[in-house]
Amino acid sequence: MNLILLEPEELADDGTAVLSGPRARHVREVLRSEPGAILRVGLIDGPMGTATVLENAPRLKLNCELNEAIPPRPRVDLLLAMPRPKVLNRLWPVLASLGVGRVIISNAWKSERNYFDTHVLEPAHIRKGLIEGLQQARDTRLPLVTVHRQFKKLMEDELDVFGPYAAKILAHPADKDFPQKELAALPVDSRILLAIGPEGGWTHFELEMLTSHGFTAASWGPRSLRTDTACAVLLGLVHAALR
Amino acid sequence: MNLILLEPEELADDGTAVLSGPRARHVREVLRSEPGAILRVGLIDGPMGTATVLENAPRLKLNCELNEAIPPRPRVDLLLAMPRPKVLNRLWPVLASLGVGRVIISNAWKSERNYFDTHVLEPAHIRKGLIEGLQQARDTRLPLVTVHRQFKKLMEDELDVFGPYAAKILAHPADKDFPQKELAALPVDSRILLAIGPEGGWTHFELEMLTSHGFTAASWGPRSLRTDTACAVLLGLVHAALR
Repeated sequence: MNLILLEPEELADDGTAVLSGPRARHVREVLRSEPGAILRVGLIDGPMGTATVLENAPRLKLNCELNEAIPPRPRVDLLLAMPRPKVLNRLWPVLASLGVGRVIISNAWKSERNYFDTHVLEPAHIRKGLIEGLQQARDTRLPLVTVHRQFKKLMEDELDVFGPYAAKILAHPADKDFPQKELAALPVDSRILLAIGPEGGWTHFELEMLTSHGFTAASWGPRSLRTDTACAVLLGLVHAALR
Repeated sequence: MNLILLEPEELADDGTAVLSGPRARHVREVLRSEPGAILRVGLIDGPMGTATVLENAPRLKLNCELNEAIPPRPRVDLLLAMPRPKVLNRLWPVLASLGVGRVIISNAWKSERNYFDTHVLEPAHIRKGLIEGLQQARDTRLPLVTVHRQFKKLMEDELDVFGPYAAKILAHPADKDFPQKELAALPVDSRILLAIGPEGGWTHFELEMLTSHGFTAASWGPRSLRTDTACAVLLGLVHAALR
């Protein structure tokens, strides 16, 4: 935990915040911060800054000065074919730590229908995982998450609402290298959409539909990766190019 | 499992192999391969090829033709500060799937001493995790793993044996971008060593020692990542540059 993130309702008008639970325990037991210590804090979707520990037990009382700019929303959105719930559960903090503006969870032919019947897609569960990742990476911008059970409808009716995108990349084994130079040349306020398929791959129909909606296939290399590893590698490549 | 990997002693002189356990179950229950079906197989540290299913129950009997070239050893070695055992446990398959020639596990000031007292470092456990990753990524080259409890001794006496390295990169928050162009320009038979520190970072002493032994700091970006995510991002960047 490299940043203590506060929910808007936790921050009082006088700048104090009183916390219990995992964040308070972390400050007491891992950081071992005594009254007077200075911590990095941030407000969800708001500014970052510092906080002075006023009391550390039984609850953690902080005096916050959130006087830094609100970090920009990450420029990359992720369209992710619904993975196994166990994998998605691990992914929420990973995605937030890598930096995504929006996560678009989609059905795919090779995603099992029953994957969607999972607590891993409950908003409170998603939020908890994402906040863990933001606290790791020192960011306050909570990724937006939507779940789409119909791939065709997502492509034809829903995806346009999230854009516009300066580039739509489809991670797929291909001869083509990953377009890092092209991404680096995009305007600094443009957005990128990265699509990562199911572990069995997109079907021919899905690939055609993605291509006809402006996606270009690009590959990291010849190795097949698990979804969570692929997300880290591909988001890492996009962010390195956009830097 | 995109490849069935065989131990050398499992392959008979006539090219047949009889398997039980997880691989046999995977072929029966996930791939649902009946007698006559063709599978991708490989020999650990040896060639890949195909196998015909002769029998699928109660044991799996294969007739193998391993007539492809032995894949080259990945050009990247990883020097990794000993992470929490739970994280390292997750990492073995991830590292093997991304592709590393050698994993050099090192002590670091901010790695807890008791991290080393774990079954996660037992050779049989390491091998099992690595093979899982190779089967995911369709590779046969088992990464070599050594464990070094003394960082200074590793730097001064032991590291030279593993080289030579055309580039030694130290993942560390820095203004400098990740040297992808420089890596892309290296001779195709050269090797690269990537060092990833503990989650709390290397100490000043450790950084000086790494620098004095030829490591150059490079950064993926400003975000702090968990060790397993950092490994995927950084090995992904190196491999994308070497492609």
